[in-house]
Amino acid sequence: MSAAATITVDEVRAAAQRLAGVAHRTPVLSSQALDARCDAAVVVKCENLQRGGAFKVRGAYNAISRLDAGELDRGVCTYSSGNHAQAVALAAQLLGAGATIVMPADAPASKRTGAEALGAEVVTYDRYRGDRAAIAERIAGERGLTLIPPYEHPDVVAGQGTVALELLEQAGPLDALVAPVGGGGLIAGCATVARALAPRIQVLGVEPELGDDTNRSLAAGERVRIAVPRTVADGQAVDTPGELTFSINRELVDEIVLVSDAEIVAAMAFLFERMKLVAEPSGASAVAALLAGRVRLAGSRIGVIVSGGNVDPGRFCALTAAT
Amino acid sequence: MSAAATITVDEVRAAAQRLAGVAHRTPVLSSQALDARCDAAVVVKCENLQRGGAFKVRGAYNAISRLDAGELDRGVCTYSSGNHAQAVALAAQLLGAGATIVMPADAPASKRTGAEALGAEVVTYDRYRGDRAAIAERIAGERGLTLIPPYEHPDVVAGQGTVALELLEQAGPLDALVAPVGGGGLIAGCATVARALAPRIQVLGVEPELGDDTNRSLAAGERVRIAVPRTVADGQAVDTPGELTFSINRELVDEIVLVSDAEIVAAMAFLFERMKLVAEPSGASAVAALLAGRVRLAGSRIGVIVSGGNVDPGRFCALTAAT
Repeated sequence: MSAAATITVDEVRAAAQRLAGVAHRTPVLSSQALDARCDAAVVVKCENLQRGGAFKVRGAYNAISRLDAGELDRGVCTYSSGNHAQAVALAAQLLGAGATIVMPADAPASKRTGAEALGAEVVTYDRYRGDRAAIAERIAGERGLTLIPPYEHPDVVAGQGTVALELLEQAGPLDALVAPVGGGGLIAGCATVARALAPRIQVLGVEPELGDDTNRSLAAGERVRIAVPRTVADGQAVDTPGELTFSINRELVDEIVLVSDAEIVAAMAFLFERMKLVAEPSGASAVAALLAGRVRLAGSRIGVIVSGGNVDPGRFCALTAAT
Repeated sequence: MSAAATITVDEVRAAAQRLAGVAHRTPVLSSQALDARCDAAVVVKCENLQRGGAFKVRGAYNAISRLDAGELDRGVCTYSSGNHAQAVALAAQLLGAGATIVMPADAPASKRTGAEALGAEVVTYDRYRGDRAAIAERIAGERGLTLIPPYEHPDVVAGQGTVALELLEQAGPLDALVAPVGGGGLIAGCATVARALAPRIQVLGVEPELGDDTNRSLAAGERVRIAVPRTVADGQAVDTPGELTFSINRELVDEIVLVSDAEIVAAMAFLFERMKLVAEPSGASAVAALLAGRVRLAGSRIGVIVSGGNVDPGRFCALTAAT
């Protein structure tokens, strides 16, 4: 592993200082029902209650806040139809930079209007023909924009690591930290913090069975690419891990556990009924791993991240009614 | 007003000490979307995230914890098909007392099993023939149980007042406090605190249009009884204010504002989509008053209580799909 392919806990601490007063210090909640189901003391870090409805604003803001005045003037660009797009639009607005978001033409109207309401320009492409990263890179090159990728950037990863920094401060000692894995930025940042501050903590990532690219890559010892995942957990529908994030996660993550789509939806219903929390499918996947008994840590103290809550009532109702 | 018909802020402070480590200190959240809709700085006190899913455990625990050893041995009794029943069952379990809950025979199975899971005995009655308070009083008399009513008890009211005590500590100075009104216990306790600690704060209660017994009673200058309300806000379907609570609220509450059932359901959807919070209809009614423009306080700082979140996904989906 090259030295460049890591981030340090000091970079996460610096990110936390930049995020003070910008990102919410999200609450940590517990539930007797959850503890009983898991036979453990579980604390839930509620990043669904973060600004923008997901942890993503942490990384986006941290990265954009480090740009110089000229870069901010020219603006930023990203590709995403999901939470990272909203986060970049929000962070850019807060920092006075223009944002250009490359989004598939068939993305939900709410995603597009959400980004536009934050002042972003949305550029659409045909998801069946275009390569979103290549399109974003071309636009960034033409317009002099700085590309803020969703996870392949040390400042983005450092920003996401502030979730674990807060969680360890709020919850005290933990035996395990369980987090969803999509591109791998959240768990890479959090694992960096856990390894530095609580070396004996188990760091467990959770992927949907249908989107197990990081699990397969860890087994293979190198990044592998799977078919584009078809899972309810759209935030985790990633076909290959990031190069930066995989280089961190292969060193620092103890294990990836897999959950089915049905287990994810059951966790969404549990969080709604028992904890009064709205979680989107990818946001509920780490809790799903606990509820489904995929994490065997009886008697221990577990920190689990609910990473996002951006699901509209119609989709929530359709998903939970079908099970 | 007789001196007996009040509670003091010191009684609320004493309740807060009894509740320390028992009730959650629930988080206070804010939302740019809510601020923009209200043209105000709004802080939301999340009692839907309280143990048992509603503020009710505060009053129930405070009251039961003041019983002597003999009374605890004999046990407690209440009548409710809703959040107070669960709260009494939970508080009794925590304090080692038996609990008997008088519940209509056609109450949802989940309410019954919820109370039974907490160790309570459920006694059913025919809601179209029986008087629940009279039945509970008879059972309490026969068995030597202490009756813990849902709001007509100074210790219950003092317990509910701890919501405002926490909110003022967490949120700092407020221009207004907006809370749902059912039997009137929550707002009576909270108004007591607000008047003592922040005399210039406006205290506004919110009732459903279809359950406006407190509003009519304030207008009449005496308690009036309305037809049994048919509102989605089952926690506010009260036909007359409590004697104790009305005597407090007529002195301390500035105004009652009314919201329609449709506005309540719209607020539930808003809380879901924009704040990732599950609120039951009565729990969302105070937010509904803000969103519907029933509270005109442009530019001010408003504290609003989301009082409970006990709605199952099926009912939530049916309600929000119908609008």
